[in-house]
Amino acid sequence: MITGTFLDEISHDIPSANWGRLEWAKDFESMASAGIDTVILIRAGYRDRCAFHSDVLRKRHGYLIVQDDLVELFLDLAQTHGMTFWFGTYDSGEHWVRGEHQAEIDVNLAFTEEFAQRYGDHPALGGWYISHEIDAFDDGVMRVYESLARHLKGLRDLPILISPYPRGAKQFDRPFTLEEHSQHWSRIFERIEGLVDVVAFQDGQVLYSELPDYLATNADLSRRHGITSWSNVESFDRDVHLKFPPIAWPKLRYKIEAARAAQVDKLITFEYSHFMSPNSMFPSAAGLHRMYMEWKRGEERRG
Amino acid sequence: MITGTFLDEISHDIPSANWGRLEWAKDFESMASAGIDTVILIRAGYRDRCAFHSDVLRKRHGYLIVQDDLVELFLDLAQTHGMTFWFGTYDSGEHWVRGEHQAEIDVNLAFTEEFAQRYGDHPALGGWYISHEIDAFDDGVMRVYESLARHLKGLRDLPILISPYPRGAKQFDRPFTLEEHSQHWSRIFERIEGLVDVVAFQDGQVLYSELPDYLATNADLSRRHGITSWSNVESFDRDVHLKFPPIAWPKLRYKIEAARAAQVDKLITFEYSHFMSPNSMFPSAAGLHRMYMEWKRGEERRG
Amino acid sequence: MITGTFLDEISHDIPSANWGRLEWAKDFESMASAGIDTVILIRAGYRDRCAFHSDVLRKRHGYLIVQDDLVELFLDLAQTHGMTFWFGTYDSGEHWVRGEHQAEIDVNLAFTEEFAQRYGDHPALGGWYISHEIDAFDDGVMRVYESLARHLKGLRDLPILISPYPRGAKQFDRPFTLEEHSQHWSRIFERIEGLVDVVAFQDGQVLYSELPDYLATNADLSRRHGITSWSNVESFDRDVHLKFPPIAWPKLRYKIEAARAAQVDKLITFEYSHFMSPNSMFPSAAGLHRMYMEWKRGEERRG
Repeated sequence: MITGTFLDEISHDIPSANWGRLEWAKDFESMASAGIDTVILIRAGYRDRCAFHSDVLRKRHGYLIVQDDLVELFLDLAQTHGMTFWFGTYDSGEHWVRGEHQAEIDVNLAFTEEFAQRYGDHPALGGWYISHEIDAFDDGVMRVYESLARHLKGLRDLPILISPYPRGAKQFDRPFTLEEHSQHWSRIFERIEGLVDVVAFQDGQVLYSELPDYLATNADLSRRHGITSWSNVESFDRDVHLKFPPIAWPKLRYKIEAARAAQVDKLITFEYSHFMSPNSMFPSAAGLHRMYMEWKRGEERRG
Repeated sequence: MITGTFLDEISHDIPSANWGRLEWAKDFESMASAGIDTVILIRAGYRDRCAFHSDVLRKRHGYLIVQDDLVELFLDLAQTHGMTFWFGTYDSGEHWVRGEHQAEIDVNLAFTEEFAQRYGDHPALGGWYISHEIDAFDDGVMRVYESLARHLKGLRDLPILISPYPRGAKQFDRPFTLEEHSQHWSRIFERIEGLVDVVAFQDGQVLYSELPDYLATNADLSRRHGITSWSNVESFDRDVHLKFPPIAWPKLRYKIEAARAAQVDKLITFEYSHFMSPNSMFPSAAGLHRMYMEWKRGEERRG
Repeated sequence: MITGTFLDEISHDIPSANWGRLEWAKDFESMASAGIDTVILIRAGYRDRCAFHSDVLRKRHGYLIVQDDLVELFLDLAQTHGMTFWFGTYDSGEHWVRGEHQAEIDVNLAFTEEFAQRYGDHPALGGWYISHEIDAFDDGVMRVYESLARHLKGLRDLPILISPYPRGAKQFDRPFTLEEHSQHWSRIFERIEGLVDVVAFQDGQVLYSELPDYLATNADLSRRHGITSWSNVESFDRDVHLKFPPIAWPKLRYKIEAARAAQVDKLITFEYSHFMSPNSMFPSAAGLHRMYMEWKRGEERRG
């Protein structure tokens, strides 16, 4: 079953639901009743937007765009519901995409330190999420992972998660073969072993027919490097014009079953509140929620 | 008035509403009260997705992605409401688009046979829909039509429908002129005469100004070849960025009136549940529903 | 605070909400309670669609696509709520984009005259909106502005509004620098001074970091030419794949505060009913509405 979800504030490319404290409180209740025990802030800041009033980011962007202290809200709601909160790092949206990896590291050292000073002792804090996503070996990003992982462990010794994506046929004109994927991730895992604890590959870029092989390969690679393997079961649909609506239920179920067959350690999703919640801004998420919950109860009865 | 609708399960490019048995039951009630007497399953399978647990397709795709037996559900709901159900063929999404028309025929011979064995005697079954859409003469697709039409009539002698599209200016950089359209469809109608019983052209690709001429040309061509002419009055909007929302009511009304002026035999729509239903996942469909129903009642009063 | 909104009937690129008289009446109530005193019909006609049964446009397009007399409805609703209604001119969608500016002028002379004959005495009518949007100096469009402005003032001597857009980095691969923007608009303002009374720049095309400088430059240019400066605070989000959903609240608040800092004379928005209203077809607009209203009440308390 899906027991974790990203919290997509601050969003790259998904519309805001425009939720305040009450709406988030209601949705955490829904998450809890759906069996979610892990919430992962996808990123605490992106370019000039931030999920809390960060002095570090306000130095970069004097006009920093902030709704409220959503980080505190999420931590408190996670605590209320006995969930673990994973904090997602800042994505400058500029440095690392231009090859300036040291600058990306530097701002994140300060930013995560600021976060740790404010919220490092919060009882719900249970993990770090390094938000820089890759699909192939990249020496610069390896240095980001190494520097941030060491720094984060020093701030508080918690597990570190990344959620990469395969260069799959649904998103790329020249996708990797499974073998190319495997070679790249072999090199990456050698490099991050002992620093990154959990890898949760996104599962929506490859064809449905390829997914079991990708999941098995990823789980096997993880095992050989002592890394925990989760699957990021995307709950939005990549097969339609609209970017992006809740996924069709049979596709989600197929992906869940494929991940279970590959014996990954945990299923998380991107993400509950937009795409799987009865409170979603997309009315079709309510149907996905009903069908998922009905199936989940059936599975639980069958044991 | 619109008296038929496609059922867009399995969808190419429209987001899933994630409806289960209850939601579909509710929507068939709504269809009935809106005067729908004909429901057409747009395709029973597409690539690795299917509307029922087909052994034939499971041989191609071992992991076949199926929600429930929606075909049985739709047949039963159609029967409950005195509607006629038309079964849509399988679209491999690969063979015919690569010119392998015999492979497309072969899988469909087996697939429709499997359907006929299971549901061929269902009292609501009233027609066949060949789901392979074209906009121009194509000898390979003619062979698909010929082979499938003969086979389907052999399975059960019911009318056969296709729903092609004009190569119109709203969708193509180099659209056909009306004359080119007419030449192509003249050749096609010569070829399918006596096999295909009903042609329902889609009405959203050409400019509103051209629509009456296209409708008249299509109705005339149909008449000359003894084919029944329906209009597929698309209820989604092709004029906006979002792909695709419910159409603006005055556009729908214009297209309905244009189709009536061309004296087509029946109006169907793609499709009720996403775009015209008060139960739609798009809130603006509720407004379309209200305005359509109000106008419909007015027209009926006026006779 | 935002005290004006466009009415996006007839729409270019935003899906129709499919609202009838009751829904519009309800939304004007909502607008009034949100402090809207000014409603601007974005265009009364576009190509073959019109917001009322115009004989002038029906001569161009015999099948003119009209829902109802929305112009009368909007005027009456504006009067009920003590709002000022601004009438937006016709956009042929063809003449002026092909350089045939005189044709664009001619149809609008007749069209606005027709409007004035029917509704020119309506007590809610308070302004003219010339709907032809530009981002750079264009001699042809200057002639459109000059001819229409003189004509409209002759029909009824009311203020004239335009709402142009900067050639900003979010929309254009080769955006203008602020200096280029300033040079172009300097030339434009010299030309339209004394004819156009109010300029409300759209605020969503430039980066958030640039917005204050653009607002200040625009306000300064306006002041030097005796033109009133409004800001068109766009309430839809340009940062996500979906085109277009309600904007994230912190972005809207940032833009409102930036416009106030630039001391523009009034904030209007494109537009309330789709993107800021609790009645919107986009569920996430309800959240935007709640957060905006809460913040507005807080600001008002603080004075």
